[in-house]
Amino acid sequence: FQPLLYQVATAGLAATEIAVPVRSVLRDHDNVRVLMDEATAIDVHAQILHTASAALGYDFLIVATGSEYSYFGHDEWREAAPGLKSIDDAAAIRRKILLAFERAEMAGSEAEQQRLLTFVLVGAGPTGVEMAGAIAELANRALARDFRAIDPGSARIVLVEAGPTVLPSFPAPLAAYTQQCLARKGVEVRLDAPVTDVRTDGVLAGGEWIASDTIIWCAGVRAMPLVRDLGGETDSAGRIAVAPDLSLPGTPDVFVIGDAARALSDDGAPLPGLAPVAKQQGAFVADLIARRVRGDREPKTFRYRDRGAMATIGRSAAVADLGWLTLRGWIAWIAWSLVHIYFLIGFRNRLMVFIDWAWAYVTFGRGARLISGQATDDRRSPSVRQPHPVDAD
Amino acid sequence: FQPLLYQVATAGLAATEIAVPVRSVLRDHDNVRVLMDEATAIDVHAQILHTASAALGYDFLIVATGSEYSYFGHDEWREAAPGLKSIDDAAAIRRKILLAFERAEMAGSEAEQQRLLTFVLVGAGPTGVEMAGAIAELANRALARDFRAIDPGSARIVLVEAGPTVLPSFPAPLAAYTQQCLARKGVEVRLDAPVTDVRTDGVLAGGEWIASDTIIWCAGVRAMPLVRDLGGETDSAGRIAVAPDLSLPGTPDVFVIGDAARALSDDGAPLPGLAPVAKQQGAFVADLIARRVRGDREPKTFRYRDRGAMATIGRSAAVADLGWLTLRGWIAWIAWSLVHIYFLIGFRNRLMVFIDWAWAYVTFGRGARLISGQATDDRRSPSVRQPHPVDAD
Repeated sequence: FQPLLYQVATAGLAATEIAVPVRSVLRDHDNVRVLMDEATAIDVHAQILHTASAALGYDFLIVATGSEYSYFGHDEWREAAPGLKSIDDAAAIRRKILLAFERAEMAGSEAEQQRLLTFVLVGAGPTGVEMAGAIAELANRALARDFRAIDPGSARIVLVEAGPTVLPSFPAPLAAYTQQCLARKGVEVRLDAPVTDVRTDGVLAGGEWIASDTIIWCAGVRAMPLVRDLGGETDSAGRIAVAPDLSLPGTPDVFVIGDAARALSDDGAPLPGLAPVAKQQGAFVADLIARRVRGDREPKTFRYRDRGAMATIGRSAAVADLGWLTLRGWIAWIAWSLVHIYFLIGFRNRLMVFIDWAWAYVTFGRGARLISGQATDDRRSPSVRQPHPVDAD
Repeated sequence: FQPLLYQVATAGLAATEIAVPVRSVLRDHDNVRVLMDEATAIDVHAQILHTASAALGYDFLIVATGSEYSYFGHDEWREAAPGLKSIDDAAAIRRKILLAFERAEMAGSEAEQQRLLTFVLVGAGPTGVEMAGAIAELANRALARDFRAIDPGSARIVLVEAGPTVLPSFPAPLAAYTQQCLARKGVEVRLDAPVTDVRTDGVLAGGEWIASDTIIWCAGVRAMPLVRDLGGETDSAGRIAVAPDLSLPGTPDVFVIGDAARALSDDGAPLPGLAPVAKQQGAFVADLIARRVRGDREPKTFRYRDRGAMATIGRSAAVADLGWLTLRGWIAWIAWSLVHIYFLIGFRNRLMVFIDWAWAYVTFGRGARLISGQATDDRRSPSVRQPHPVDAD
């Protein structure tokens, strides 16, 4: 459940609480077969999907391969500034954040400690805002009393954005409120500060060098490269232009939905890459294919029903734009929490996430502070202060 | 919390539910400093502990480095047959088990499918018994209706043991009951079957070749190699012989406890490598050092208070040996569950694990079926059946 991935990355939730196997979700549909395999190529003329270990013929194909983070032609930035798209990404970022505090506790110099306690989020869309707020609360609250050599509350959290506002897709008053909230939590917001260089020890944003060991990429996305095999027209984000019924133009047995597709709204603007768009497209195409199989050839047009957008800034603070109503503050945060618990798959996950959030609300703690994963990427501090000086030798 | 690691490995619990940062456990003790660093060498003469990034002088040193799995001189078996000692091990084994079912669903031949659906546990101590029971329930219950090409219930679970009985440290009637329970769950138990070869595609046990892609090592352990720096006498499991007060003989400022130590009971037999032994030793040494610091030089002797041992075989089945009383079946399982929830650190984890277990009991499901981690170790099936034959070409 991607909208809550940032909570795994900031130690608020366990990965298993927001992830359910596709296989078990579809268990009761006997005519659905799930294969865990990598799609490597699509041959629309022969109607074959090639995977790493098989070639599958199809009558209808729905391509819903989603997106990955785009580094705007600087793929070499990826290693220093990972993005948050998968459960593994979230575990790696959680590890990176928690290890930064661990290393700062052992740091040999003020400069190194400062660099380790600086967290840079690139991109002030919902993910960047949510990560910034969550890291600020982790530092100020959950970790506050756990260290001796450092004060986690002194951590700098810097949110850099190339454009002139945070949450550019939200109404201006909500964006302004969000910026105030972030400032109150101690997050430094840098607007009109495009990133021009990313290294393992810092980032150059709007001409200013920010020394940091923990840079997280929350900027643009692009469609997965597989969709190029479809041969259609792609936009700058790699998305395939689709017909009004979401099929590939000229190829009515292939549909493209979600972040892989460039679908247009009634006013001709492309639909945003949001979960509600993808979900409505999935339901639309499923219905359309069922009609086709029954012999109904009537043309259909997908229309997105925009129920609004929400973003959370942290404890008791969120914004919601429902079109006919905007909410902010505690009431928006409650709405955000209820909506996200509602959309989780499975009663068990809903219950667990509810308990985790209620627990965190009461205690200010974080329940999932696990540092796991291989240590191969660990860079050791070159010099380290000796907490207990050695007289010998 | 090591006793429940096998539940993470078999998708019953989330890793964050059984793990709590040492740092936050010790938060309220202002004179405790936690460093996340690797101890590389101990110099008992200069009273220095060397770590990867510092040299720490000490007045008293407590070595509690625990144990790792011993492959009895065949360290090359480790890759094919991982053991279960850390959270990362548990995630890797969970991944291995769940991927075996995924690959079996795509297998190109009966032989390959059979090999993928065969799970071998090496060693019938508590860990081997618990893993065998848990994998059997995963296959027979949680995954039962999730696949189309395979019947997860047809999975073979083979528990191989070099000795003549399962649970050798338990009274014979409980061991016999455990073996019956395992048989009823469909686990094949092979006694007097020492393992003489382990490969990535199978294991040679008692002269019989068992083809399997998923071999899990639950056999002997040995102390971590660091303890050799202490220079004391070690036994065949690498444990350091300690004085009656758990200090290193001739070095009263160094103590060794837990799986790193070879402590003797009153009757001269070495104490077993169990969590209760280590916990009582920790409390004993802490008290002893506090006395020494106050100037009390009175000699003390550690005495292990054996409150019994328990092992669970699966749903509603466990054995408990309390010395004065033995339990089996449902009542032992309830006792096991309560004891393990009680010893978890933190009310929140207790609540979450209780809910997960209650949920699993009612639904037969498993809440933590997450396949995460890098795919670098994945071996692809060389040939794969085509579920939908392709006519083209």
